[in-house]
Amino acid sequence: MSKAIIFREGHLYYLDQTRLPYKEVYRECRGLKDAYEAIKKLKVRGAPLIGVFCAYSVYISLAKFKGKRRDFLSYLDKVVTYLKSCRPTAVNLSWALSRIIKAVYNSTAEDIKELKRIILKEAEAIYAEDVILCERIARFGVSLIKKGDAILTHCNTGFLATSHYGTALGIIYAAKQRYRKIKVYVDETRPLLQGARLTCWELKKKKIDAILICDDMAAYLCQKKMVDKIFVGADRIAKNGDVANKIGTYNLAILAHYHRIPFYVVAPLTSFDLSIETGKYIPIEQRDPNEVRKILGKFRIVPKNFKVYNPAFDITPHKLITAIVTDKGIIYPPFKQNIRRLSQNLR
Amino acid sequence: MSKAIIFREGHLYYLDQTRLPYKEVYRECRGLKDAYEAIKKLKVRGAPLIGVFCAYSVYISLAKFKGKRRDFLSYLDKVVTYLKSCRPTAVNLSWALSRIIKAVYNSTAEDIKELKRIILKEAEAIYAEDVILCERIARFGVSLIKKGDAILTHCNTGFLATSHYGTALGIIYAAKQRYRKIKVYVDETRPLLQGARLTCWELKKKKIDAILICDDMAAYLCQKKMVDKIFVGADRIAKNGDVANKIGTYNLAILAHYHRIPFYVVAPLTSFDLSIETGKYIPIEQRDPNEVRKILGKFRIVPKNFKVYNPAFDITPHKLITAIVTDKGIIYPPFKQNIRRLSQNLR
Repeated sequence: MSKAIIFREGHLYYLDQTRLPYKEVYRECRGLKDAYEAIKKLKVRGAPLIGVFCAYSVYISLAKFKGKRRDFLSYLDKVVTYLKSCRPTAVNLSWALSRIIKAVYNSTAEDIKELKRIILKEAEAIYAEDVILCERIARFGVSLIKKGDAILTHCNTGFLATSHYGTALGIIYAAKQRYRKIKVYVDETRPLLQGARLTCWELKKKKIDAILICDDMAAYLCQKKMVDKIFVGADRIAKNGDVANKIGTYNLAILAHYHRIPFYVVAPLTSFDLSIETGKYIPIEQRDPNEVRKILGKFRIVPKNFKVYNPAFDITPHKLITAIVTDKGIIYPPFKQNIRRLSQNLR
Repeated sequence: MSKAIIFREGHLYYLDQTRLPYKEVYRECRGLKDAYEAIKKLKVRGAPLIGVFCAYSVYISLAKFKGKRRDFLSYLDKVVTYLKSCRPTAVNLSWALSRIIKAVYNSTAEDIKELKRIILKEAEAIYAEDVILCERIARFGVSLIKKGDAILTHCNTGFLATSHYGTALGIIYAAKQRYRKIKVYVDETRPLLQGARLTCWELKKKKIDAILICDDMAAYLCQKKMVDKIFVGADRIAKNGDVANKIGTYNLAILAHYHRIPFYVVAPLTSFDLSIETGKYIPIEQRDPNEVRKILGKFRIVPKNFKVYNPAFDITPHKLITAIVTDKGIIYPPFKQNIRRLSQNLR
């Protein structure tokens, strides 16, 4: 399977996801501007992947820095602040950057070279951990799937969203290996069509029986009992279990509730933000209206300059969630207590 | 406002809706093949408009016929059967065609010319009645809207879907005239984007404060209390009040139910099919997978030949509907009894 990002001999490359499913184009991230643009324009996306990519980007941005320790740290702060501002909703971005900062500030090394080495080591650790998180998530999550299940998913939560095989899609891949027989319905996920472009591309590579639908068809499928379970990812999870994820997720959660279909959120503990009590404190990124007006920046579907509303994420209240699958186990309601318990055990 | 169809001096013209919002192109319907293609490819669409257009199309298809009465009738039957097969869900199509058949068979005229005149007269009556239906619907429906209401709508139910100013959109136009202050959110309505292409085009012409959203954003708007009421059209309504309408309608009905937002269906009594007990007997048209794969036939969004599911309509169970606005009044639950009562009063 193609890797979403590759770090090799001091160079950082990423698969340009805006070109999928048409072409597999790798680009090099040569510094801060490249990194910012890649994330902002969703060339690199998916909460866990953004974290890993940002960590490496800090290293790339500082690799050629020459000067004193003090100036290095001051520039590091600028780099981190700039990258943090890039996308506000996914918590992994600021989580990964905080880890880099912490690692550097924990060191007393005066040598810039040594500080750079520490940053790279931390980025590599974040990458390696993300790989393990995917494996653990898949191991826990696969227990929720039965042979022959039809699963509905939204956006992209696979190879292209993580350092390894994914979160929600990772579970589906594990289920495919275990049972062979499994069916996946994919929401196209307007406006940027991550479901149609990315998830379908992955599922085709994995030879999984998959069917694309438009987002407004999901309710009909639920009514017809064509969907056994819904699996989605998360960009940030609050202390009480409220989930920020790609716009359209909340819609699916309501459909699941109405039709009594299990609704699972899948995310590593790194996507939890225990500093916020509920979902209402999670900032929702509002994106360029042209993403709605023009399909993939090319094909206008509405009268010119027509007013548009384009929230990139929504908040699913915890009471609509059946369970949250993490790398440390499956969390069931009551979420507040069980999230607290799980995270306390890890300290 | 542009007319969706024009009949003038024996010629039938239609505004090609597949070219909107880019260009206003009128085409002539020269006979049966043109009519079939125009409806099948949604160049002419909207349940009431399809009925009117089909009625005129029968006249156009037979206008040049020469021969005996018997052969004329036999050809008429063929024309009607062919047109009926075109789109299965909207009932107005077969309703209008049945009226034509009835008008002809009620006449004892031997002269072909006279029979043609009867067909044209009936088509013109159907057209004129549709104009009145729109006005009556708007008059009843506007009472449901308050000054400053934000209304969410799906697909297109305006000038482009009827012979006059529409059903659900007609009510919105009436409310705009009455209150001036009103706001409309428009679901883009994948796959064929009738909301983005057609409704936004109409609302822009009408200078109504309108905002386009993707279909998967509606739930978020409801959660944020940005939507006061939802108004949609109908392609066919069963005896018990179940409604077949554009795919995505059922989704909105569930959102309305969950958020306690009034959900109104708007349709003339000609869209009721009292020969069927419930929605489950309404045939759902399955359309070409390429409508989902390629945006408006041009821009592919998914790996080639990826499997697709493309139901064009869904069924909203009556229990999710607040009221049905018709040309004879507003029908509230219990729908079965109240639909029966209203239709009996009309006999």
